[in-house]
Amino acid sequence: MRNNSFGDNFTITTWGESHGKALGVVIDGVPAGLNLTEDDIQSFLDRRRPGKSKYSTPRNEGDKAIILSGTFDDTTTGCPVSVMIENENQKSRDYSNIANVYRPGHADFTYEEKFGTRDYRGGGRSSGRETASRVIGGAVASKILNELGIEINCYTKSIGKYAITDSKDIHLDEMDNPLNMPNDMVAVQAMDYIDECMKNNDSVGGVVECVIRNTPVGVGEPAFNKLDANLAKAMLSIGAVKGFEMGDGFGVARARGSDNNDEMSYDRGVLFHSNHSGGVLGGISTGQDIVFRVAIKPTPSIGRTQHTIDTYNDEIDINITGRHDPVIVPRAVVVVESMAAITLLDLLMDNMTSRMDYLKKIYNGS
Amino acid sequence: MRNNSFGDNFTITTWGESHGKALGVVIDGVPAGLNLTEDDIQSFLDRRRPGKSKYSTPRNEGDKAIILSGTFDDTTTGCPVSVMIENENQKSRDYSNIANVYRPGHADFTYEEKFGTRDYRGGGRSSGRETASRVIGGAVASKILNELGIEINCYTKSIGKYAITDSKDIHLDEMDNPLNMPNDMVAVQAMDYIDECMKNNDSVGGVVECVIRNTPVGVGEPAFNKLDANLAKAMLSIGAVKGFEMGDGFGVARARGSDNNDEMSYDRGVLFHSNHSGGVLGGISTGQDIVFRVAIKPTPSIGRTQHTIDTYNDEIDINITGRHDPVIVPRAVVVVESMAAITLLDLLMDNMTSRMDYLKKIYNGS
Amino acid sequence: MRNNSFGDNFTITTWGESHGKALGVVIDGVPAGLNLTEDDIQSFLDRRRPGKSKYSTPRNEGDKAIILSGTFDDTTTGCPVSVMIENENQKSRDYSNIANVYRPGHADFTYEEKFGTRDYRGGGRSSGRETASRVIGGAVASKILNELGIEINCYTKSIGKYAITDSKDIHLDEMDNPLNMPNDMVAVQAMDYIDECMKNNDSVGGVVECVIRNTPVGVGEPAFNKLDANLAKAMLSIGAVKGFEMGDGFGVARARGSDNNDEMSYDRGVLFHSNHSGGVLGGISTGQDIVFRVAIKPTPSIGRTQHTIDTYNDEIDINITGRHDPVIVPRAVVVVESMAAITLLDLLMDNMTSRMDYLKKIYNGS
Amino acid sequence: MRNNSFGDNFTITTWGESHGKALGVVIDGVPAGLNLTEDDIQSFLDRRRPGKSKYSTPRNEGDKAIILSGTFDDTTTGCPVSVMIENENQKSRDYSNIANVYRPGHADFTYEEKFGTRDYRGGGRSSGRETASRVIGGAVASKILNELGIEINCYTKSIGKYAITDSKDIHLDEMDNPLNMPNDMVAVQAMDYIDECMKNNDSVGGVVECVIRNTPVGVGEPAFNKLDANLAKAMLSIGAVKGFEMGDGFGVARARGSDNNDEMSYDRGVLFHSNHSGGVLGGISTGQDIVFRVAIKPTPSIGRTQHTIDTYNDEIDINITGRHDPVIVPRAVVVVESMAAITLLDLLMDNMTSRMDYLKKIYNGS
Repeated sequence: MRNNSFGDNFTITTWGESHGKALGVVIDGVPAGLNLTEDDIQSFLDRRRPGKSKYSTPRNEGDKAIILSGTFDDTTTGCPVSVMIENENQKSRDYSNIANVYRPGHADFTYEEKFGTRDYRGGGRSSGRETASRVIGGAVASKILNELGIEINCYTKSIGKYAITDSKDIHLDEMDNPLNMPNDMVAVQAMDYIDECMKNNDSVGGVVECVIRNTPVGVGEPAFNKLDANLAKAMLSIGAVKGFEMGDGFGVARARGSDNNDEMSYDRGVLFHSNHSGGVLGGISTGQDIVFRVAIKPTPSIGRTQHTIDTYNDEIDINITGRHDPVIVPRAVVVVESMAAITLLDLLMDNMTSRMDYLKKIYNGS
Repeated sequence: MRNNSFGDNFTITTWGESHGKALGVVIDGVPAGLNLTEDDIQSFLDRRRPGKSKYSTPRNEGDKAIILSGTFDDTTTGCPVSVMIENENQKSRDYSNIANVYRPGHADFTYEEKFGTRDYRGGGRSSGRETASRVIGGAVASKILNELGIEINCYTKSIGKYAITDSKDIHLDEMDNPLNMPNDMVAVQAMDYIDECMKNNDSVGGVVECVIRNTPVGVGEPAFNKLDANLAKAMLSIGAVKGFEMGDGFGVARARGSDNNDEMSYDRGVLFHSNHSGGVLGGISTGQDIVFRVAIKPTPSIGRTQHTIDTYNDEIDINITGRHDPVIVPRAVVVVESMAAITLLDLLMDNMTSRMDYLKKIYNGS
Repeated sequence: MRNNSFGDNFTITTWGESHGKALGVVIDGVPAGLNLTEDDIQSFLDRRRPGKSKYSTPRNEGDKAIILSGTFDDTTTGCPVSVMIENENQKSRDYSNIANVYRPGHADFTYEEKFGTRDYRGGGRSSGRETASRVIGGAVASKILNELGIEINCYTKSIGKYAITDSKDIHLDEMDNPLNMPNDMVAVQAMDYIDECMKNNDSVGGVVECVIRNTPVGVGEPAFNKLDANLAKAMLSIGAVKGFEMGDGFGVARARGSDNNDEMSYDRGVLFHSNHSGGVLGGISTGQDIVFRVAIKPTPSIGRTQHTIDTYNDEIDINITGRHDPVIVPRAVVVVESMAAITLLDLLMDNMTSRMDYLKKIYNGS
Repeated sequence: MRNNSFGDNFTITTWGESHGKALGVVIDGVPAGLNLTEDDIQSFLDRRRPGKSKYSTPRNEGDKAIILSGTFDDTTTGCPVSVMIENENQKSRDYSNIANVYRPGHADFTYEEKFGTRDYRGGGRSSGRETASRVIGGAVASKILNELGIEINCYTKSIGKYAITDSKDIHLDEMDNPLNMPNDMVAVQAMDYIDECMKNNDSVGGVVECVIRNTPVGVGEPAFNKLDANLAKAMLSIGAVKGFEMGDGFGVARARGSDNNDEMSYDRGVLFHSNHSGGVLGGISTGQDIVFRVAIKPTPSIGRTQHTIDTYNDEIDINITGRHDPVIVPRAVVVVESMAAITLLDLLMDNMTSRMDYLKKIYNGS
């Protein structure tokens, strides 16, 4: 199956392994007439880059995006935009210590069983490195959304128990810390917590929140391609994500209808008195902010001794050496933002055929 | 877009509005040679039927499934299985009180804005009644999975704050209560709580949990069609669902890697010491139980006075009269189970082309 | 796979066997705001109906279309339009003579081998009766195209060697003959030929031509969803079609470039001096008439003695009794027209996201 | 839309323009465990390479295929296989003479109108060079088919009026001529004809035939994904193809049922007395040879003076200078073969879920 593609109208097809020659993405369905340069893409990729703080691997991936097709004179032509990143660190390291081991919390065992073979170099395609391709797609989708006036903000909401609990405490101008956490005070506490975990050769999880502003009313389809359904798939398709919630999310399980319904009024425009729904009713955008959160698990690669088996079914104890991010959350922020942009744009395009008057607007010149 | 279809290999296409002539589903991709009768489907539909307790609408929907195509001598032929339910209650009720009103928590406003028109009778296609079509598809998918030895159990885990918190307290033989909650003691508490809410013309939410046993290792695809990603989409595509979590779910945000990784050993088979992952690593089934939960919001239709606007943008106060379920959760159980079955079967089929030796097994007779 | 669906944006999903309870179609992606009644559909279906002349089976199928969902007050709502035809002639005839026989030229053998089972009543799903569902979809697609000013004409171009060879001899006002052949003189010759074949218990083939006027420039996608590629698939998916050609078609194999290129000039609009291309260049509509032809084989059911085998691999001679159309071509005309309408509309919708300024036209109100 | 992808299970996504930095393909759905090297791909690409005779452009494209992902130790891993060809001849030539001109028979006009912009360097994505990506996909598909015992032969059947009319005159051991025409005598006549056309600055068309042996019975789906329907789409999606016919093709229009039906008998296996159907009944393979033909138009780029317009709607006369192949047919042979292989493999995979016993064969180990 076309498993490595996402989106029906604006479609990314990603390829590449952690330690192969290169990785990349083919972006199909990019409308013609968009100004697009490698810099547009690079600025997104740089937000994902490791090596920016002590909480991410010092390995300098570089990650230089090269546009191979689909633009002419820095303008998209309507043809597929192919973008590649050459892997710099593909020299033949010695993988003998992990080649035959199933690391706990990793996909080593499931890949081997599914395919009967496995590219064990750095996790192969199950590596978080695969998300670089998604971020390239997200950079293009975001640029298109921006031209339509739509804006996406993603940030770290919590690390372990250290959370920004009140939305009033979200200060987007305080995001420039190693955690991409928009509250300097909570960020400091969270960093202390990470430091402590690092001393114990352990790792931590957290929550990323995403807010999308200025989405027109009407985006999302009634039955299966609900805006929240497609966002949920997009998010759970990111390796370390284990949960998704829209608006009040799991909080609704304890709410009553009288708390949870968003009442409406009108004052030079439709007004909602609250946004428990997270900007989606019946799978369709209400025009309010679209709000969702994802739960991200602790990095599975840890230095502590773990019990596991090898490919010969022998039991062993392993310590995963080498430097690994003690926390995935900060680098996942731009991945969540990218997948959100792709999902939203894809459904915006779907919506363009929802009404006869839209067809007439395009084809009858009225 | 093919929005009303779900699944790439085993595909349901649903149609029908709450108060139209009929509703139904076309199930494409049913393998030939499956014994299938209307009784197989009816037994699933009956689990969804309202009117079974004081917590569901007394309206007797009947919901008699008729197989229109795709079987011959009670055996599937490989052609699409079309199943229809005729609506009995479609007599022209007076809808004038809701025809022009946007009910809070409902999709009235978003449908009207998206399509420029709306079938306001009983919510039209945004009604929970649409899920009957999914349950028909789920009945067929479940029957196929059962023939492969796979078993799915779904149940109410919590209503408001009344929850079965320890998996040891799940007693599947105690599920025969109006809440489909597998613990009689908690169920009694939850029913008292619902009774109290009903007195206040209010509604409540809850959580449904699903456990799938005996899934082979290797089901789910690496990148976008991860087993958990497709389950997340399937679940959020159900109208009232606001959250999804796999295994430990949002709990991982507070966990450490050393807690969260599932260690392995071997004793006449691969063993995991825990199941924090919920049976999925890298999007692929591990062979452990697949475990996930969904959060379901309180019924939006409540008798209490709510403020809203009408289609002329005038503000009004409404009380939604008529009987409505004070809680959606118990009836959602079989819908969650159905969508899980369809999702899993679809990916089981995908996996059949993942290895050269599978192709040879089918085509070279070896 | 979703084999019983056609179209990515405007999608028909067909179901039903020749002698099952009913057959029908779910049409997904119908834009909201289209006026649509059962009469719109019935008028298309009536063009396909048998029993209108001595060249079609006297069986009166009736074929009364019932709209089950997707419209409200005779206007489409954007939800799937489900249409059903109940089979009147499903009484348990005696099929023992064909139940175990592989009729030459029919799909009996291939269905049995593929699925291990077969609905042998009247050919099951391989029956030409399946095309009724397509015609319903075509009626809806055509109505939408008409609102955009696009017009489709299909007709019988040849029966056996009796052909309308010059396009000047196409007289659309002379189509009201049993062959749907727009030239009374050729039609008379062709009917004489059919009469002679009928006397010999034999059947004949022919060619259907289709001309589409007023398609905007730009419909069709560059690589795989070329307008001609999608038309070719649409046509070959009709049971009896064995060939497809666009514009000059197979004639190009003997042409030279200087003959085959269509030169251009300008006079208050772009002008082409000829239309060898059939209105498509690089898979994209040129704005000229879209012209293609399909070859339709002789009815495989003939009264003459034929040698074949049964399901036990025993050789036998059979005579197919009962009345069968001696020629499929006239009834195929509306099927070709329907599939052409669906294909064209589907690509018209695709094209709506091809340019940034189209997105802005819909979403920025400009 | 995902226009640049073909195939549902085995999917190629092609990208790249004639004179961009590179072009390539992502092949998704390659089963794990296939031995695959760059040599496997190169041998296919070399068959398409220009510069091999005086009938193809002397430009040495090189076309060195580089596998960027999806294999490990020369074995496929089940992850997407990305293959790239770097363009060597992308130096900034002077295109001013064609940048603003709509060449007759080319897609210049339609691209410009559709997208509002155009990469005019060498035709951009509408160039025949795009087919190199398809040939890469075809090399992989063919290798898989070969492992299942299936064999594909494609060849030039006619150039202009010089045709191999009798299948007995097909000598596959005589194909090593510049025309890939398996009959030396006809090939010599055809070459004389081409020489004469070249002197007149003109070009010629022809027909390619394809024969596939050893396909199992049962491949192809009943309704829309008929084997012949998908082949038709695959073929018409190749730029210069204007017609497709299966088996007797357009010949059936003049045949009678008694000629056209293939009678059957049995002798240690099912036997057909003839193959008018081309190996497909009801869209499903019969086990006989699959036979089809495509019509290919004369190269549109010719040196003769042609009348056309430019992008300012001014009329001009042009002579297309530079060397162009006087005939596309010989180089199209491997493209037809490649698209046939991809189409067939895709449907072989679809067929793997058509029967309950196939599912049990994979999942129950029986």
